[in-house]
Amino acid sequence: MWNEEDIKFMRRAIALSLRGRGRVNPNPMVGAVIARDGEVLAEGWHRAYGGLHAETDALSSCTGDPSGATMYVTLEPCCHQGKQPPCTDAIIRAGIAKVVFGMTDPNPLVAGKGLKILREHGIEVVHGLLEPEIRRLNRVFIKFITERRPWVTLKWAMTMDGRVAASSGDSEWVSCEESRRLVHELRGSNMAIAAGRGTVESDDPMLNCRIEGLRQPLRLVVDSGAALRTGSAIAKSAGSFPAMLAHLPSAPSAKLEALRTLGVRTLECSPDPAGRVDVADMLDRLGALSVDSLLVEGGPGLNWSFVEAGLADEFYIFVAPKFIGGSSAPGPLGGEGLQKMAGALPMEIESVSRSGDDILIHGFSGKCSQE
Amino acid sequence: MWNEEDIKFMRRAIALSLRGRGRVNPNPMVGAVIARDGEVLAEGWHRAYGGLHAETDALSSCTGDPSGATMYVTLEPCCHQGKQPPCTDAIIRAGIAKVVFGMTDPNPLVAGKGLKILREHGIEVVHGLLEPEIRRLNRVFIKFITERRPWVTLKWAMTMDGRVAASSGDSEWVSCEESRRLVHELRGSNMAIAAGRGTVESDDPMLNCRIEGLRQPLRLVVDSGAALRTGSAIAKSAGSFPAMLAHLPSAPSAKLEALRTLGVRTLECSPDPAGRVDVADMLDRLGALSVDSLLVEGGPGLNWSFVEAGLADEFYIFVAPKFIGGSSAPGPLGGEGLQKMAGALPMEIESVSRSGDDILIHGFSGKCSQE
Repeated sequence: MWNEEDIKFMRRAIALSLRGRGRVNPNPMVGAVIARDGEVLAEGWHRAYGGLHAETDALSSCTGDPSGATMYVTLEPCCHQGKQPPCTDAIIRAGIAKVVFGMTDPNPLVAGKGLKILREHGIEVVHGLLEPEIRRLNRVFIKFITERRPWVTLKWAMTMDGRVAASSGDSEWVSCEESRRLVHELRGSNMAIAAGRGTVESDDPMLNCRIEGLRQPLRLVVDSGAALRTGSAIAKSAGSFPAMLAHLPSAPSAKLEALRTLGVRTLECSPDPAGRVDVADMLDRLGALSVDSLLVEGGPGLNWSFVEAGLADEFYIFVAPKFIGGSSAPGPLGGEGLQKMAGALPMEIESVSRSGDDILIHGFSGKCSQE
Repeated sequence: MWNEEDIKFMRRAIALSLRGRGRVNPNPMVGAVIARDGEVLAEGWHRAYGGLHAETDALSSCTGDPSGATMYVTLEPCCHQGKQPPCTDAIIRAGIAKVVFGMTDPNPLVAGKGLKILREHGIEVVHGLLEPEIRRLNRVFIKFITERRPWVTLKWAMTMDGRVAASSGDSEWVSCEESRRLVHELRGSNMAIAAGRGTVESDDPMLNCRIEGLRQPLRLVVDSGAALRTGSAIAKSAGSFPAMLAHLPSAPSAKLEALRTLGVRTLECSPDPAGRVDVADMLDRLGALSVDSLLVEGGPGLNWSFVEAGLADEFYIFVAPKFIGGSSAPGPLGGEGLQKMAGALPMEIESVSRSGDDILIHGFSGKCSQE
């Protein structure tokens, strides 16, 4: 069904789409190539949220006449008026003869409509080329558009004996410099970063992204009783870097007001049965705020809340070649834990690689490995 | 200095030497090839403890006349009478013209003597070919012969969140079947297996090797007060599989006697400052019993005793793709632990591979990575 040229141009469209990583959320990453007789006439990609779609970006950069050409695009062209006019209109107007797209629009209310309109205008449309790869790359968008919840990535660094800190609480540093740089890349490609009250209290982190050119994530402190100190690094910097507090209705309103005065936004969430912030409810509320991706950076209690509830989608686990020991040194997942090893929650390992001196294990929650 | 033929024949000698793995301890693994004009005349290896050395094994299987030939042997030929006559005599008698050996005898009292005797008899001797590889393969022997202590390998299986059991203590099973089979191979290639009292009490393991054809290791329970039940699997099977108890002088003598009646050997050790069996002293005593290799299989307290004291040489860490959680679920290294992450003890990663569903991290203690 696909010839070598199709695959080559779609691979190029995928590569172009990745240029939007961390810049287009909560939109999908999309790339497009316009070609005729094996020659590329134009390339385009979705560059930034609110900006041109990949199809119109490619058409607008086409110096020659695209009529009769084929457009390769990673996602089904849209047919509705949003921040941008429908791409189907532009494709029809430009006289494109054939459209090859990768994945169908994951929004079930829209899926297949772009395809239908193009065909009604006599354009040949085929799709499904490199679809599994494209779906994998747009997993954040797919979850967000179908569930209206952010894709949740957990990241931790542990010693070879499975500890994220010494029994004293000291954790500077478990992982090597290269791994810590990679964490900043993760921060820059997620719309929000969550940390629990305990972690923020003990480490007083900034949780910002320290790589130039990447977006600053929303820093979210999960803090039932609004214990976050107004003098904490996060609260003090709320004017420069977005910050938010997820709290329970019972949190003291004067404290919430004091934090809001500093620029910290507040997100009132429902309690879970244990009387903490219900993370599922929190994800719904973040989704309603168009947060499509959340990086959870501990501590052990918050991490476990996500894993236990089946709400963790993806994992980056750094294992540093060192031993710290200590029966009371904390591991990455705390809480009550499960009682039977046979009932342990599965993970699908995607890759095992080296990150400087460390080992990096990247994987997905067992349940969503086929996303 | 070395030509392709030298390397080819020494590689073959190394491969032959490995046939002795788990069968020759506490002797080294040694392989030998006799060649002339690029043709192999004979091959040999040290097959079992007490049996022919590789050199004489090769000479004895030589159907033609080896005079004028070259012998490739992984280790410097011995020149002393032990369980076997000196190999240097046999080499001289056979008229071998040239000897190429890999590593010098690691025993400083003997090193270089075989070389000297051969040269005095007009035999050309060169050495050092593939020496780092050969030393690595004979690391157990080298440590034993120079320190009279067993090489210590720690093995554990942990979840992706660094736990060796659930908070309930349940640990069946952390790792997959393939990994557990590999553990039995490790058991078969170590002369002794150690486990702590707590592990033996809670899991009641057999600690034997369940792979046909491999040697049964000495099963060693580290148990200061001789708490080992006479009805435990290890004590009951002491008639069929060797078992030993490492205890303190203060252990009740009647209990020791009862265990001895079942066939359990007892090893009285000195106490460490915390009043437990001093593992350094225990290693000395095991060395005196010609135990050249010890596989430590937990629990966390015993593991940490070895790591903290810098007495762990090698590590096999299985990481299973599952999450168990639980603040009180045990990690692989217990005890007090270290207080500062910057002071964590280093490990040198040798390889990271897949073992069935699990990740297998193999490495060495930072201090002995160049052994």
